Amino acid sequence: MQTKKFDFSRQSVQYYFDASFSDLKSIAPQAKTIVITDEHLFAAHAKKFKGWKTIVLKPGEQFKTQATVDSVIEQLINLGADRQTMLVGVGGGVITDLTGYIGSIFLRGVAFGFVPTSLLAMVDASIGGKNGIDVGVYKNMVGTINQPRFLLYDAGLLKSLPETEWRNGFAEIIKHAAIKDAAMFKQLESASLKRFQKNKPDVQALIKRNALIKTKVVLNDEFEKNERRLLNFGHTLAHAIETQYGLTHGEAVAIGMVFASGLSEELLGFRHHNRLTKVIEQYSLPTELSFDRQKVFDVLRSDKKKEADFMNFILLEKIGKAIIQKIPLNTLFNYL
Amino acid sequence: MQTKKFDFSRQSVQYYFDASFSDLKSIAPQAKTIVITDEHLFAAHAKKFKGWKTIVLKPGEQFKTQATVDSVIEQLINLGADRQTMLVGVGGGVITDLTGYIGSIFLRGVAFGFVPTSLLAMVDASIGGKNGIDVGVYKNMVGTINQPRFLLYDAGLLKSLPETEWRNGFAEIIKHAAIKDAAMFKQLESASLKRFQKNKPDVQALIKRNALIKTKVVLNDEFEKNERRLLNFGHTLAHAIETQYGLTHGEAVAIGMVFASGLSEELLGFRHHNRLTKVIEQYSLPTELSFDRQKVFDVLRSDKKKEADFMNFILLEKIGKAIIQKIPLNTLFNYL
Repeated sequence: MQTKKFDFSRQSVQYYFDASFSDLKSIAPQAKTIVITDEHLFAAHAKKFKGWKTIVLKPGEQFKTQATVDSVIEQLINLGADRQTMLVGVGGGVITDLTGYIGSIFLRGVAFGFVPTSLLAMVDASIGGKNGIDVGVYKNMVGTINQPRFLLYDAGLLKSLPETEWRNGFAEIIKHAAIKDAAMFKQLESASLKRFQKNKPDVQALIKRNALIKTKVVLNDEFEKNERRLLNFGHTLAHAIETQYGLTHGEAVAIGMVFASGLSEELLGFRHHNRLTKVIEQYSLPTELSFDRQKVFDVLRSDKKKEADFMNFILLEKIGKAIIQKIPLNTLFNYL
Repeated sequence: MQTKKFDFSRQSVQYYFDASFSDLKSIAPQAKTIVITDEHLFAAHAKKFKGWKTIVLKPGEQFKTQATVDSVIEQLINLGADRQTMLVGVGGGVITDLTGYIGSIFLRGVAFGFVPTSLLAMVDASIGGKNGIDVGVYKNMVGTINQPRFLLYDAGLLKSLPETEWRNGFAEIIKHAAIKDAAMFKQLESASLKRFQKNKPDVQALIKRNALIKTKVVLNDEFEKNERRLLNFGHTLAHAIETQYGLTHGEAVAIGMVFASGLSEELLGFRHHNRLTKVIEQYSLPTELSFDRQKVFDVLRSDKKKEADFMNFILLEKIGKAIIQKIPLNTLFNYL
């Protein structure tokens, strides 16, 4: 186990890399901790949850809603949770988003930590303190930015991860490479999903590299005034199509990246649109989708990143270097 | 108008004392502002709201719930609110609590400010960044601590304030005197509700004095680790009886203060239990209530201030000096 501590503006976060779920006991006092997880994970890792007070949720993004929050709060009250209670979210991004949000509002805030169980959550969703729930078709419309106390990384949990979840994780890994790490981009080009799945040390190193990329960006700009927006590369369109077209987050981001990369080519003369498209295909992610232009545009217009008549869009100058560009809504509509 | 700026840990708050509602235009840009108020205020001050985008809620603590939050968020989406939107809560504590909470979670946080319209909101509820909603019988079970950008004080708004609301305000004013300001306590003893109601400069001075007492306590301890707890004097019991017995907040706090004062006499030899009881009566507030001991205790046990088997209770050593005392739940039950 390797520990690293990062000081965010309101909270220090302890990272436990190359750790094991069983280390949780020494991090979160069992008597004062309530674990939040989902039915799949609870069934798949029944033994691990023994001895922990656990709230088990239905799995899936469709339950990342206020109704679930209401139900968890009721259960917390029934379990006698108080201000000394620590919540630990064990799961993918839906579980860490819900746990972080509930931890931020229950009793006006209690301590919480995460054990991300999906590749996506390990390299992205569990990092940086953003939490929240969806409101209708609008993703993460409600939430806070509030850091967890800790992140515990156990790559062993990936053993039972479905193929589609591996791809979701790689969508964000490719994103990190595209906006921040040209060397990792080359590494991804020369490797494959299979190779990472078979090689635990490689995947552990990849997780750590990506966790640190995201952490560094968030440390520079926790409340998303500047640099943190770069992490939205591919996400603006993704948020508009994901729910409407029943895509996984990774699929939506992959399509969003191809769209933003094409826009980069058109507006900035970005020269590696094909390379990016190819690496996305290489990790079994989609690169296009036929969608209802007006419907998608209507959701785009309600995006959190919108300001009056233009949108802050993330474009690529080159592999490893992204910029924020204000794009008029009209231009965006035409390009769709 | 007199302005004062206080720097809280995450946010500076501008106080506009002796101001007028019409000053709001120069503080909150009308085009980017959405006002949140209730039906009573909207009807009573129709002219003032002209030109402001306004969300009008049903009045009363029974609407300080998640259902109202859901409805406001839907309206914000429909109004095209974005991250540059500022919410302004114009109302009593229910409206400022809701506005602060929604401002803290909508789009992971937007700017918000308050125009408190009740005496209680002016001297207490709108100050200090605590916001939230009730969950069933549990008051403020969910919320955040997040400061507004500004507080605008217009004592003219008190003209239409119902008598019972004046009393609610004085419950908190008496509390401030009891825990922090012996001189103000004497002033209250020698004055009366009527005299303050008739004299605008006196009430303005009283509002400012009380706003500054609370502000100073919160500045010292924004996240309620120590000193801020003193402001809970009278409130632990109050929260347990208010909803169950259909009391106003002021009535519940008054009864809670008498209870805590009696406990102070018993446990600390506090010598002014009678003086405190008398001044509470003088401002037309109740000093006792017959309640179901077990039922009240059950709610008390779920209070946010509870830690395992004891409660942090606020007691008085003397007028103007309060302390935090850990009291075993058993002792508390017996004294009820």
